[in-house]
Amino acid sequence: MNNGAKSAEFPIGVFDSGLGGLTVVKEIIHHLPNERIVYFGDTARVPYGTKSAETIIRYSREIVRVLLEYKVKMVVVACNTASSLALDVIKKEFDLPILGVIEPGARKAVAVTRSRRVGVIATSSTVKSGRYAAKIVELDKKIAVTSTACPLFVPLVEEGWFDHAVTYRVAEEYLGGMKKKKVDTLILGCTHYPLLKGVLHEVMGPKVQLVDSAMEVALQVKDELVRRRLLRTRLEPGRHQFIVSDEPRQFEHLASRFLGGGIKNVRRYIYV
Amino acid sequence: MNNGAKSAEFPIGVFDSGLGGLTVVKEIIHHLPNERIVYFGDTARVPYGTKSAETIIRYSREIVRVLLEYKVKMVVVACNTASSLALDVIKKEFDLPILGVIEPGARKAVAVTRSRRVGVIATSSTVKSGRYAAKIVELDKKIAVTSTACPLFVPLVEEGWFDHAVTYRVAEEYLGGMKKKKVDTLILGCTHYPLLKGVLHEVMGPKVQLVDSAMEVALQVKDELVRRRLLRTRLEPGRHQFIVSDEPRQFEHLASRFLGGGIKNVRRYIYV
Repeated sequence: MNNGAKSAEFPIGVFDSGLGGLTVVKEIIHHLPNERIVYFGDTARVPYGTKSAETIIRYSREIVRVLLEYKVKMVVVACNTASSLALDVIKKEFDLPILGVIEPGARKAVAVTRSRRVGVIATSSTVKSGRYAAKIVELDKKIAVTSTACPLFVPLVEEGWFDHAVTYRVAEEYLGGMKKKKVDTLILGCTHYPLLKGVLHEVMGPKVQLVDSAMEVALQVKDELVRRRLLRTRLEPGRHQFIVSDEPRQFEHLASRFLGGGIKNVRRYIYV
Repeated sequence: MNNGAKSAEFPIGVFDSGLGGLTVVKEIIHHLPNERIVYFGDTARVPYGTKSAETIIRYSREIVRVLLEYKVKMVVVACNTASSLALDVIKKEFDLPILGVIEPGARKAVAVTRSRRVGVIATSSTVKSGRYAAKIVELDKKIAVTSTACPLFVPLVEEGWFDHAVTYRVAEEYLGGMKKKKVDTLILGCTHYPLLKGVLHEVMGPKVQLVDSAMEVALQVKDELVRRRLLRTRLEPGRHQFIVSDEPRQFEHLASRFLGGGIKNVRRYIYV
């Protein structure tokens, strides 16, 4: 599908299954303050992390089509599950740059590990896809990767139990294997997990580096825009647009947790 | 919408956001062994408990239409969230008997409480709807109802942590208020919760009666079929049909937890 010439003035499209991708939006705004962002959160069908590849591919394709209606110049798949399961397919189907979150996170982990023992925590679907491990080993085949699905972390974040005793206990249960493997680097392979950094640091110990791919993704977006001469040149800050598939109010309410500030004027998109 | 004459030979349609409704199917099979069931689990869009009324109504309407293609003689909304938010709307839109799970659960609680202090635990959307409390007070206005949303219970069940220390700790946190209110009856207002009965008994104490609406729903289905002369008369056990909106394998795998036995030949329905 050819979508014509992309103008630098056009916005960057970012999508996620729900709210989590806002951690990536926050970093893009920080590193590229003049860019405009159109964010799509698929709140009527969230979560993706327990669903099949076929379904995630279908959902991702539908969302890219919606973002194209907003004339985006690039798409960022700010969801680890969709990046793991759908990125390769949608890259082939659409004629615009599409970036995921797996590769930037993997690159960062490879750069920071000293012991070459890297851990990955993510949703069940992301872990099952094996994408992080494959990408890390592609970059450095001497690295040993340990992956663990942590299905309760997303609901714990959504409950707001960021440093609750239960969250510690769950983290100890999930991360026991990681600790035994003596990883020195842990990839937070789900956009919700950065909100649990405090607990994860405490449980893994101070020597383990936590890799939050959001910042790495923002830097890759910047590189890509520079390379393609698509960086927005106007010097006033961009106005952003938020779209969700379920009722906007709850999204507005919870968004501040991820974005570190309030948002307004969230629009609703209804699938037909 | 008129769907013509209903034959007693036709199946009963049952739907839920995912797997939980199978606890209701199990009871219907137990009490009505000659009936055929067509079950629809909306696994591509599960869960419903955090989504808006508008979205739940839209999803429920779509599913009833699918069930009508299977010529069902009755629909059972085996999901507390959809029963709370969508039942009244879809009852008006479709010309066949549609039963929910709220009223049977409320009736049972009213029948068993002695202290007239009843607790309800459910998803956020069910609690927010206030339907259980309204129905109970309609039946006996002297009953005091305490409702608590327990958003982590569904993920804990799906993780299989039925009697894990974390589940006890979470239950203690959620049910602290209930215990202070000295309820003598607790409605399990979500089809996943019967799998946590052990923990809930332990935390609430032996004097508190747990009301699992699945059995009550099955009895109401029977009454309704008798009243409408729609009871299946053939004496060989019915063959059931399972339909899901996401990939069938995981559903087949997890269904035994709810149904207490394996199922095969699960079909997939893809929304267009």
